[in-house]
Amino acid sequence: MIFFRNDYSEGAHPAILDALITTNDHQTIGYGEDEYCREAADLIRRRVGRPDGDVHFLVGGTQTNMTALSSFLRPHEAVISPARGHICVHETGAIEATGHKIIAMPTTDAKIRPEQIEEAVLFHCDEHMVKPKVVYITDSTELGTIYSLKELLEIREVCSRYGLYLYLDGARLASALTAPGNDVTLEDLGRLTDAFYIGGTKNGMLFGEAIVILNERLKEDFRYLIKQKGGLLAKGRLLGVQFKAAFETDLYLEMGRHANRMATLLRDGIRDLGYDFLVDSPTNQLFPVFPNELADKLSNECSFEEEGPVDAAHRSIRFVTSWATPEEDVRKLLDVIRQLG
Amino acid sequence: MIFFRNDYSEGAHPAILDALITTNDHQTIGYGEDEYCREAADLIRRRVGRPDGDVHFLVGGTQTNMTALSSFLRPHEAVISPARGHICVHETGAIEATGHKIIAMPTTDAKIRPEQIEEAVLFHCDEHMVKPKVVYITDSTELGTIYSLKELLEIREVCSRYGLYLYLDGARLASALTAPGNDVTLEDLGRLTDAFYIGGTKNGMLFGEAIVILNERLKEDFRYLIKQKGGLLAKGRLLGVQFKAAFETDLYLEMGRHANRMATLLRDGIRDLGYDFLVDSPTNQLFPVFPNELADKLSNECSFEEEGPVDAAHRSIRFVTSWATPEEDVRKLLDVIRQLG
Amino acid sequence: MIFFRNDYSEGAHPAILDALITTNDHQTIGYGEDEYCREAADLIRRRVGRPDGDVHFLVGGTQTNMTALSSFLRPHEAVISPARGHICVHETGAIEATGHKIIAMPTTDAKIRPEQIEEAVLFHCDEHMVKPKVVYITDSTELGTIYSLKELLEIREVCSRYGLYLYLDGARLASALTAPGNDVTLEDLGRLTDAFYIGGTKNGMLFGEAIVILNERLKEDFRYLIKQKGGLLAKGRLLGVQFKAAFETDLYLEMGRHANRMATLLRDGIRDLGYDFLVDSPTNQLFPVFPNELADKLSNECSFEEEGPVDAAHRSIRFVTSWATPEEDVRKLLDVIRQLG
Amino acid sequence: MIFFRNDYSEGAHPAILDALITTNDHQTIGYGEDEYCREAADLIRRRVGRPDGDVHFLVGGTQTNMTALSSFLRPHEAVISPARGHICVHETGAIEATGHKIIAMPTTDAKIRPEQIEEAVLFHCDEHMVKPKVVYITDSTELGTIYSLKELLEIREVCSRYGLYLYLDGARLASALTAPGNDVTLEDLGRLTDAFYIGGTKNGMLFGEAIVILNERLKEDFRYLIKQKGGLLAKGRLLGVQFKAAFETDLYLEMGRHANRMATLLRDGIRDLGYDFLVDSPTNQLFPVFPNELADKLSNECSFEEEGPVDAAHRSIRFVTSWATPEEDVRKLLDVIRQLG
Repeated sequence: MIFFRNDYSEGAHPAILDALITTNDHQTIGYGEDEYCREAADLIRRRVGRPDGDVHFLVGGTQTNMTALSSFLRPHEAVISPARGHICVHETGAIEATGHKIIAMPTTDAKIRPEQIEEAVLFHCDEHMVKPKVVYITDSTELGTIYSLKELLEIREVCSRYGLYLYLDGARLASALTAPGNDVTLEDLGRLTDAFYIGGTKNGMLFGEAIVILNERLKEDFRYLIKQKGGLLAKGRLLGVQFKAAFETDLYLEMGRHANRMATLLRDGIRDLGYDFLVDSPTNQLFPVFPNELADKLSNECSFEEEGPVDAAHRSIRFVTSWATPEEDVRKLLDVIRQLG
Repeated sequence: MIFFRNDYSEGAHPAILDALITTNDHQTIGYGEDEYCREAADLIRRRVGRPDGDVHFLVGGTQTNMTALSSFLRPHEAVISPARGHICVHETGAIEATGHKIIAMPTTDAKIRPEQIEEAVLFHCDEHMVKPKVVYITDSTELGTIYSLKELLEIREVCSRYGLYLYLDGARLASALTAPGNDVTLEDLGRLTDAFYIGGTKNGMLFGEAIVILNERLKEDFRYLIKQKGGLLAKGRLLGVQFKAAFETDLYLEMGRHANRMATLLRDGIRDLGYDFLVDSPTNQLFPVFPNELADKLSNECSFEEEGPVDAAHRSIRFVTSWATPEEDVRKLLDVIRQLG
Repeated sequence: MIFFRNDYSEGAHPAILDALITTNDHQTIGYGEDEYCREAADLIRRRVGRPDGDVHFLVGGTQTNMTALSSFLRPHEAVISPARGHICVHETGAIEATGHKIIAMPTTDAKIRPEQIEEAVLFHCDEHMVKPKVVYITDSTELGTIYSLKELLEIREVCSRYGLYLYLDGARLASALTAPGNDVTLEDLGRLTDAFYIGGTKNGMLFGEAIVILNERLKEDFRYLIKQKGGLLAKGRLLGVQFKAAFETDLYLEMGRHANRMATLLRDGIRDLGYDFLVDSPTNQLFPVFPNELADKLSNECSFEEEGPVDAAHRSIRFVTSWATPEEDVRKLLDVIRQLG
Repeated sequence: MIFFRNDYSEGAHPAILDALITTNDHQTIGYGEDEYCREAADLIRRRVGRPDGDVHFLVGGTQTNMTALSSFLRPHEAVISPARGHICVHETGAIEATGHKIIAMPTTDAKIRPEQIEEAVLFHCDEHMVKPKVVYITDSTELGTIYSLKELLEIREVCSRYGLYLYLDGARLASALTAPGNDVTLEDLGRLTDAFYIGGTKNGMLFGEAIVILNERLKEDFRYLIKQKGGLLAKGRLLGVQFKAAFETDLYLEMGRHANRMATLLRDGIRDLGYDFLVDSPTNQLFPVFPNELADKLSNECSFEEEGPVDAAHRSIRFVTSWATPEEDVRKLLDVIRQLG
C-alpha cells in the first residue's frame, strides 16, 4: 500500500526528531516559557520581519483556530470564511462551540474574493444579525490553491475599509510559499494579516503550529486563552525545539519544496496519462478526476481520500505529497494508475 | 540549579523516546485510528479489567477534563469538586468556558468527603439552581494526598444514590497507585468510576492522557467531542506509541514508584532536619513548611513552586519528584537545606 | 403614516388585555407554576390532542428557539435549517452562542425539502464534522409560505429514518393554520413534530410563546434550561393569563383569520393593480415587487420593511397584516399605491 | 392565605397598568426603538445625573445579568461576587453558561468587602487562572441588607486600583434607596458604578429592568448582546411605557417606600413578640428566626419562603413586603404569629 492520504502519515523529519532527542534530558520550566520557545519565536519574528509580533506555539490546527477566533471576537461577532474553509466543515463545529457564527461564502476554488467579503458585511446591517469582524482564509487552501500577492492586497484593503481583522490559517503554509507561481512571502503575511499561523503538523513536525499575532489589539492575554482552550502544553519546550530546528536553517521551506516537487511530478504524470483535475492546484494536494472504476481499483493499491462525485461516471480523489514522499512512490503510483486506467 | 519544580521538566523516559524513534518512519492513518493506539487501548483495558471500556488518548489534562465534562453534562448540569481541584483553580475557567458551573466544596487536604457530595446535592433543590451531575476527584490530589479504597467506595455509594457520575482525574495516577499505604488498583477504578484518565504527561511521556470511559451512557460520540475541543491529534499514533511502551511492560507504574522513592528519601530527610509539612502526602509532591528566610535563600539553589504563607514567619513550598529525579539531586537538595537552615 | 411593518406594532388584543386587567390583583406564586399557566397548558394540550405533551411558556421567539435547541442538542450536534430560517439570519447568532452549528440549506421559498435533509445528513459522515440532530422549520415561513400536510409527512419520514428531531417554529402559526389552502392542524403538529411552539407575540398578545414538547426524550429538566437562558418570567402568570384567554375560545385562530383576510384583500388589490410578488404567500406576509421609484415614494406614506432588490429597477418590500389591521387601512394603502404607481 | 412570599405575586401597580392600557392601540416600531423607550431612557438619565449614560430595557434580572456580564467580559475573565449573590446561586448557572467563572467570596450579610475584592485579585496571578474583571454586587442584597455610601466608595476605589468594572444588580433597588438609614442615591450609582440596573419586576411593574451603562468601554454593540441572549422584546414599548410611568413622577421610589413602611411595621411587630432576625435588614426582606414548630404552623396561614436551619430547634424564614402589601395583611400576620407562637 502506497500512502498519498495526507501529509501527516509519518512521525517527524529526521532533523526535527534529532533536535527532540538531543534536548530530551535538559530541564526547563514548563508551558512554553523556556529558552527553546524564546529562540524559536525570535527566529520566526525575524523571518516574518516583525520584531514586534507575538509568537505562541500550539499543538494543532483546530485548536489554534478556535483559540484565536474566540480570543479575537466578542460574543456577537462572526467570522467570514470561504464555505470550503477548514473551520466551516472539518472542525466539528469548534468555532460555533466557542459561540461564534461562521458566515460561509460559496466558492469553487476555496478562495474568498474581496467582493464576497463586502457582500457579507453589507448584508449584516443591524443588531438582529451577527456582526462580521474577522475574515478567515487558508493558504494553501483546502483545495490546494494559493492566493497571489495581488489577491491578498485586495482582501487586506476590503478588511481595512470595513474594520475587519484578517486571519490566515497556514496549516499548509510551507507548501503554499514554495509553490510554483507563488509570489507571497512570510514578510507579506507579516505586513498584511492581523494574525496568521505557521503550520508544523503537516510539514514535518510531530505536531505544532506557531501563531503570529501582529495587531496590537489582538495580543492581550492570549496565553490565558491558550490555557483555557486546553492548548498550553506542559512540556511546551517540545514546540520550541521543533520550530527552532525548522527555522534556524531553511528546513521549514525546504520540506515544503520537496512536497511540491513530488506533487509536480505526480501532477504532470497524471496529466500525461490523460486525466484532468477538479481544480488547478500548484501545491501538495492534487484532486484528479478519475473514472469511478479506476478510483475503486486504485484504493486497493494506494491509501487516499475521496473528494466527491463529479458526474455519474467520474469522481475526484485527493493525493497528498509531503516532506517524506519518496520519488519512488510517485513513480510507483503513476505506474499503478497507468496499469489500472 | 536543582529542579524540584514539577514532574514535567524533561522530555520523555528513554524507553518512551525509543518507541517514538523506532516507529517514526512507519506510515499510519491519522487521528488515533492506527494500530499503535488500538494496541495501547487493549493493554489498558486489560490492566483495568474492563474489556468493555472505551479508551481515548488526548494530549493534556485540562483538555481531557474539559472534553470529558462537556461531553458528560447537559447545559444546566454542574460538577462537584473539592475547592482545591485542578478544574476549580488552575484551568483558567476551562470548564465554565464550556458552560458549566463547578460546585466547589472546601477541604484542607484536597479530598472531597461523601457527606459533602450529599450536601451539595441536597442544597441544589430546584430549577433556579444548577443540577449536580458529576463528581470530580483527583488521585493523587493537588496536595499529594491519596484516596483509600474505603473512601472511594463511600464516594461511589453516594454517587450511585443520587445518580451522579464519578470522574477521576489521574494526572498523577502512577504516583498515587504506587504510593506507600495505597490500597487502590487500576481494577478498582475500572469498577468504581464512570470514567477516569491515566496521566502520561506527568509520568514520563512527552505528553498524553488516556481516558477510560466505563459507563455505557457516557460513551456515545466521544470522538466528536475530542475533535471539537481541539484534542484530536493528527498524528494520533504518537499517543498510542507512548502508552503502548508504558503499558506493555510495568514501565508506567515503575516510573511512579521511582518518583515515590525519591519523595520518600526527601520527605524523611526534611523531617530529620526538623521541618514539618503542610499536609501529609505520601506521593511525589511534598509541601514542607519553611521559615521565610530559608525559603528565600533556597530559591537561589533550587527551582520549586510556592504554595503560600502559613503564618507571618513561615511559608509552604512545593517539591516535586519524578521518574527522572536522580537520587543525587535529592541528597544535594537536603544538603542545601541543611546548610541554609 | 399607515403601518404594515409587522404584526407587533400594537399592544394586545382587547380580550387579552382584559384578561390581564381582570387578574391583575390576584396573588399567585411565581415562575409559571400558577393556576393560569396550568389551565392554559391544559387547553393547549387538548387542542393539540396530546394529553402527554409538556407545555412551557416563554417570552419571545429567539429565546424559545435558543432554549429549545440548546436543550435538545449535545455539544457536537447541529440543527438543519432552511438558509432563510429565522435562527440562521435574524437571531444575532443566538444558536451558535449556545455552541451549535446551523447547517443552512438554500431555498427560494424558505421551505426545506426532505431530500435536502437527507443530503445534509449524508454529507456529515464522521467525527470531523458536526452531527445533524434537529431539523428546524417555520410555519408560516419567513417568506409567508406554508407547509402542506404532505410535505410535513415527508419531512417527518426522513427525520425518523435518520434519527432526527423535528422542531417547528410557530411564531406565525395562527396565520399559517388559517391560511387559504392550508391543510395542517394543531393535531397534525402534535403528531408529527417532536416539539413546536405556538406564537403569541405576533398574534395579538403582549408577548409570549408556548412550546409544546412531545418527544419524551426532550422533556427532562426543560425548566432548568428556561431559567438558565433568562426566560423564566417572575410573573409567569402573565403568560398563562394570555394563552388561557386566547385558547379558551377560538380567539387564537380567529386573530390569524383576520390577519389573513386583510392580507387577501391587500394581495388581490395589488395584483389587480398589475404588480407581481416575490413569492406566492397565502398568509399575512406579502412581498410585492415594485419599481424602485414607487417603493421610495410609498415609504413616505406607509411604514414597511425592505426585502431586497429583484433587478436594477425593481425591489421587493414586505407588507404585514395582523389581528389589528383595519380594513380601512388596507383600502387606504391600495389607494396610495394606485396613486403613486 | 396571606402572601409574604415575594414582591412579584401580583400584576402591576394600577398606574403602571393604566399606562399600558392607555397606550395599547398606539402603533410603534418594535424592539425598543419607539418613543416611549426614548422618553423613559431620558427620564432615567436625568435622575441618574448622567446625560451620557446608555439606557437599555430588558425583561428580567437573570437575563440582564447574563447579557451584561457576557458583554463586559472576554472569555478568560471572571466576575467576583459575594457567595450569596443571585448570579452565584439562583440563576441556574446562567453566567457560567455564557462561559465565565464566578469567583464567590464568603459573607454573612451578602455584602462583599473591599479587602475581599483585593484578595480575589491577588490570588489570581497568572494565565493558569481566570482573570477577575468585574465586581458584582446587589443592592439591596439577597439578605435585605444595603451598602452605605462609604462602603460603595471603598469598593469603587479598589475596583479602580485593579482595573475592575463595578456592576450593581438593582433588582430591589427601590427598596434599597428608600430604606431607613440609606445614604445612597441614584446619582451616586451613576457616579460610582460602571453599569447598574434598576429593577422593575420586583417593584410594581409587570416585568422589566433598566440597565444603565456608564463606562464608555462597555457601551459598544450592547443591543446585539440583548438580541443574542433572547432579551430584545418585539413589543419593546411595553418596557418604555412602564418605566416612563414609574419615572415621570416619584412613583418608582414611592413604591419602594411603601414596601419599606410595611416591612418596618412587620419587623417591629415581630421584634416586640420577642423574636430575633438572621440578619439586620432595613429593606423589604425580613429573615425572622422562629422555632421550627411555629414556622411549620405558620405555613398553613401564610405563603413564604424558607431560608434555612439556624440550630436544631430554630430556622429562619423569609417575609417579603411590596408596593402592594396592605397594612391590614401585616397586622393579620402579626396576629397569627402571636396566636401560634
